[in-house]
Amino acid sequence: MTDIDRATQAVREDRLWRRHLDMAKLGGTARGGVNRQALSPEDAAARNQLMAWARARGFSVSTDAIGNLFVRRAGSDATARPVLSGSHMDSQPTGGRFDGMYGVLAAFEALEALEDAGIATRRPVEAVAWTNEEGSRFQPGAMGSAVFAGHYTLDAMLDVKDWKGVVLRDALTETLAAAPAPGRGERPGFALDGYVEAHIEQGPRLEDAKTTIGVVTGIQGSRRFVVDIVGEEAHAGTTPRAARKDAFVAAVAIAGAMQEATRDADDTLRFTIGRVDVLPGSPNTVPGRVSFTIDMRHPDMEVLDAHEARLRAIVATGAAPCSAGIERVTSVAPTVFDPAVIDLVRDAARRQGLSHMDMPSGAGHDAMHIAALCPTGMIFVPCERGISHNEIENATPADLAAGARVLVEALLRLANR
Amino acid sequence: MTDIDRATQAVREDRLWRRHLDMAKLGGTARGGVNRQALSPEDAAARNQLMAWARARGFSVSTDAIGNLFVRRAGSDATARPVLSGSHMDSQPTGGRFDGMYGVLAAFEALEALEDAGIATRRPVEAVAWTNEEGSRFQPGAMGSAVFAGHYTLDAMLDVKDWKGVVLRDALTETLAAAPAPGRGERPGFALDGYVEAHIEQGPRLEDAKTTIGVVTGIQGSRRFVVDIVGEEAHAGTTPRAARKDAFVAAVAIAGAMQEATRDADDTLRFTIGRVDVLPGSPNTVPGRVSFTIDMRHPDMEVLDAHEARLRAIVATGAAPCSAGIERVTSVAPTVFDPAVIDLVRDAARRQGLSHMDMPSGAGHDAMHIAALCPTGMIFVPCERGISHNEIENATPADLAAGARVLVEALLRLANR
Repeated sequence: MTDIDRATQAVREDRLWRRHLDMAKLGGTARGGVNRQALSPEDAAARNQLMAWARARGFSVSTDAIGNLFVRRAGSDATARPVLSGSHMDSQPTGGRFDGMYGVLAAFEALEALEDAGIATRRPVEAVAWTNEEGSRFQPGAMGSAVFAGHYTLDAMLDVKDWKGVVLRDALTETLAAAPAPGRGERPGFALDGYVEAHIEQGPRLEDAKTTIGVVTGIQGSRRFVVDIVGEEAHAGTTPRAARKDAFVAAVAIAGAMQEATRDADDTLRFTIGRVDVLPGSPNTVPGRVSFTIDMRHPDMEVLDAHEARLRAIVATGAAPCSAGIERVTSVAPTVFDPAVIDLVRDAARRQGLSHMDMPSGAGHDAMHIAALCPTGMIFVPCERGISHNEIENATPADLAAGARVLVEALLRLANR
Repeated sequence: MTDIDRATQAVREDRLWRRHLDMAKLGGTARGGVNRQALSPEDAAARNQLMAWARARGFSVSTDAIGNLFVRRAGSDATARPVLSGSHMDSQPTGGRFDGMYGVLAAFEALEALEDAGIATRRPVEAVAWTNEEGSRFQPGAMGSAVFAGHYTLDAMLDVKDWKGVVLRDALTETLAAAPAPGRGERPGFALDGYVEAHIEQGPRLEDAKTTIGVVTGIQGSRRFVVDIVGEEAHAGTTPRAARKDAFVAAVAIAGAMQEATRDADDTLRFTIGRVDVLPGSPNTVPGRVSFTIDMRHPDMEVLDAHEARLRAIVATGAAPCSAGIERVTSVAPTVFDPAVIDLVRDAARRQGLSHMDMPSGAGHDAMHIAALCPTGMIFVPCERGISHNEIENATPADLAAGARVLVEALLRLANR
């Protein structure tokens, strides 16, 4: 039997599932979900739990200056750059049990499987729990991986405040005091040889296609806009239509034209107006101002450019007699994963006889930052009805284990390259 | 010279304007508006001011059990039913100096003009300040006139609470203790021979037509609806359009269809979506729920019926794949004023050489309740750019005086009928 076979067979579905249930108690909600905000006491509890499991297996732990937590299984070559796998343990306020946590526990399961199978790897293999991926308490999200990759500066992030005014620096100090681990260098970031992140899909495509493994080819680019429409407040009973500058009438015209303009034939473009503020918000006052957000995503930068131009044209012409502007507030370029890692994941799924499909990631993940540092890929497994960021988020023990088996094979191949 | 000529010539533009400025100090805001909430200390101050002016002229004052304040100039026939004129002294939180207050001060100016001209009327002529017309602190509005007319019960209104939990009964007791006046019967309401209310237009029609006097033919009917659309929250990055139930997409379709369906050729129908709630209101989540209000008004009940049917049809068919419902939350029938009073107002404007036009009232007023009790009419004067419920609300001393002259003529004719 090959090392690969022994490693994948050492993945234990029951252990991986039980670890999910154990972690779900930390910040668990009455409705079966999880509220484990970044750098909260619940986050600290999850860190302590992960470290306890790690120490019980003889793995070493460390944490860097932004709180990223690493679990290391040593390799035979002490000087070799490690192969890394993981995700995050923080959650949305009404989050589920699998978003992020699965990637951490699948990586840890991979380490345990290698250990159980007694397989020596040349490179160290490490599991990581990145700090604050969700960005629901401290913005921006994917913070730990971004600081690790040098995309955000450590100092700027340490000064970020949550909505109660708590400074991240203080929350981090408290968390690391409650869940202490040896430090990992003065500044976050170290050389990596590869990175593979497992995650629930958070969308319906795998389930709809009755497919177990998503071979993630990249992360679509995303752009966030705010459209601001200025009209004039007026009395709803007395002001004739011809005399109105109704900002919500203009908003409906603009939003409708945008929804029409973004209906692509292959349903790949994602266009969402998620937040809408209508002011003053009184039933008998003609709205004087409307602002709304646009979230637009696509794997192809040129498609994003073309659609942004269309949105701008609609805003420029569609608001009369109101005035309107559109501002791009964020732009994240599409991430294209490393072809060799994509192949590794696809080959592992095929070799293990698992149904699989290539797909881009609709959501952003820590992998988008790490992809700038080393060959990177991701593995998706189905989640029930595609529902995520929700307490009813669900996945099956079998699918989670299948993803972990693909992961351990990919990591083992990377670790011996 | 006739009594009519003497009375109208006794109207003093400077006095009426100064009284507006004096009243504007009570609850005056930094931006030149007024915040004089119903049954607040500012309301009590305005009551005391009005009573002081009344007593200085030898007029008697009284207040009923809902706090409506009456100033009476006696007639020669002690048994005759009085003729009444007035409006309200409470304001919106960021209200103007003329909304409501003009009707009270114009009525008081009419009493003073009759007094100055030494004219005896057969019937008593009374000025009234109705309690809580705005409904911004205690709902519903037009409360004092509605209780007077028996449209709302006194006991139910006394139990109403403001948003801080203050019970109206207590606020009323406090206000009447601070601004005491003799009681007017055990329950509100007494027989009237006629009612004329002067008011700023709160719309742009008079100003646009360069016309001084609006001969108000009635108050348009109004209906309030809430549309509720239920879709399904989903991840904005991962959920294909075909798999979405985007409640805001449905809202845009429904609102757009409604706006189209309510574009009447003569621009008489008023259709306003004023409050829109999009949930959960996160930029990267497909909205799972949208609710919005509709305020629809028209002078003709049949037109309202026909348009309500159209709105219902749009909601029934326009929301797929979301579900939607529409609920009518209030319905106020159109008020048609008494033809004789309308003629009196029109004739007075014509006789005085004032430009005038017949028009319905777009806004609701206390007159809509009193119209059920006795022959009723209203007089509008222009307000700058039609802006009201706003601190920059404005009107000219000349227009206010012109309205008062039409009012005193109408009241004098009614008082001697």
